[in-house]
Amino acid sequence: MTASQARVAVVVPAAGRGERLGGGVPKALRPLGGRPMLVHAVQSLATAELVSQIVVAAPPTLVEVVSRLLGPDVRVLPGGAERIDSVRGALRALDDDIRVVLVHDAARPLTPPSLVDAVARAVLGGLPAVIPVLTLADTVKEVDADGRVLRTPPRGGLRAVQTPQGFRREVLEAAYTSSDGDGPAVTDDAGLVERLGVPVATIPGSDEAFKVTRPADLVFAEALLTRRPLAESGRTS
Amino acid sequence: MTASQARVAVVVPAAGRGERLGGGVPKALRPLGGRPMLVHAVQSLATAELVSQIVVAAPPTLVEVVSRLLGPDVRVLPGGAERIDSVRGALRALDDDIRVVLVHDAARPLTPPSLVDAVARAVLGGLPAVIPVLTLADTVKEVDADGRVLRTPPRGGLRAVQTPQGFRREVLEAAYTSSDGDGPAVTDDAGLVERLGVPVATIPGSDEAFKVTRPADLVFAEALLTRRPLAESGRTS
Repeated sequence: MTASQARVAVVVPAAGRGERLGGGVPKALRPLGGRPMLVHAVQSLATAELVSQIVVAAPPTLVEVVSRLLGPDVRVLPGGAERIDSVRGALRALDDDIRVVLVHDAARPLTPPSLVDAVARAVLGGLPAVIPVLTLADTVKEVDADGRVLRTPPRGGLRAVQTPQGFRREVLEAAYTSSDGDGPAVTDDAGLVERLGVPVATIPGSDEAFKVTRPADLVFAEALLTRRPLAESGRTS
Repeated sequence: MTASQARVAVVVPAAGRGERLGGGVPKALRPLGGRPMLVHAVQSLATAELVSQIVVAAPPTLVEVVSRLLGPDVRVLPGGAERIDSVRGALRALDDDIRVVLVHDAARPLTPPSLVDAVARAVLGGLPAVIPVLTLADTVKEVDADGRVLRTPPRGGLRAVQTPQGFRREVLEAAYTSSDGDGPAVTDDAGLVERLGVPVATIPGSDEAFKVTRPADLVFAEALLTRRPLAESGRTS
């Protein structure tokens, strides 16, 4: 099998509550332009040329609803209590011939398909782990528990990480196997891979791949949707 | 003079070109809802209850134009070649009885007046240096010159820094005096103050105080403007 024939899957852990966003529904189902965020996100993945399987971990009580929303080409599983459990469950549901796995946030509904393909292509091209990143608009400070500034890390070396993050299948599986029962909630797949000593490469992210976290992000997302020619230009920076 | 009678000035260095934004005009003069960003920013400052003087450093060839835009209550000076020169020039133009100085980015046009007052109030209340911050939506990585990931600083201790940043006048003046001729371009006033060993405190920032850096930020800003009831609610997070 040549690299270009290797099959690519995307795992979407979408079982979280997203309480910062409010609205009383699971974050992935918050509407955006009349459709749930998750539907936008999966549509972008399905439009990418290199994606051949999509697996979504949904809130357990909503598996049927979500499955109907996403259609027969998307595998929907009940998610676990933590994000790490949802990703593990999704990894077990991958087709045998999948060689590259991307993990994507449902809360990045306007991610351009071109970015999905760029990440997949970089892993297919030989890199074990690839993440899309942007430079930071704001200065970043490290603060103590009381909010006092401790230090200012040099901004030139910092990047904000987006998704999808892409991995060779065996690398991601090893990362999730080795992280059994260790401490804080895992929200950063590349971080697990780093702990294995596997090098993680970066590629340019996209402004449109921003994460919907706070209510103002929904305003931005709606604005981008109504100007979709801008979002569809696939402009990355 | 009691704290509440101390006079507060805001310095706005707005002489930069802002090349990432494009458009062929100085960044501060890029239109937003039909008016230059700088006009929005200054209007927010002028609306704040605690601000008594506003000094703007404009591109030297545009001092008259900017002065006419901002009206007789705002002092407009020619800015310097670097941001540090613009802030120094503005500090020299402050009224004698100013005791608290805020430094604000013209590129944060929708900053709520309530945030300006919150920063001023914190300095008036006795803190030498105060900056508004937000938690980060994205994981942050440190990368090397080739874009390879070096490490993942714990996100819980990181904050994105906004403006206005507020200082006791003598603290900011000392910071700008002591930073003569040292290395890289200064874009972080609090960073200069930290180097003096002066403690820097943080207060909650605002989603609406985001910095317009890339074209997508203008889409977001236009969207917030058309929903101004949201922006005016002064919601901070």
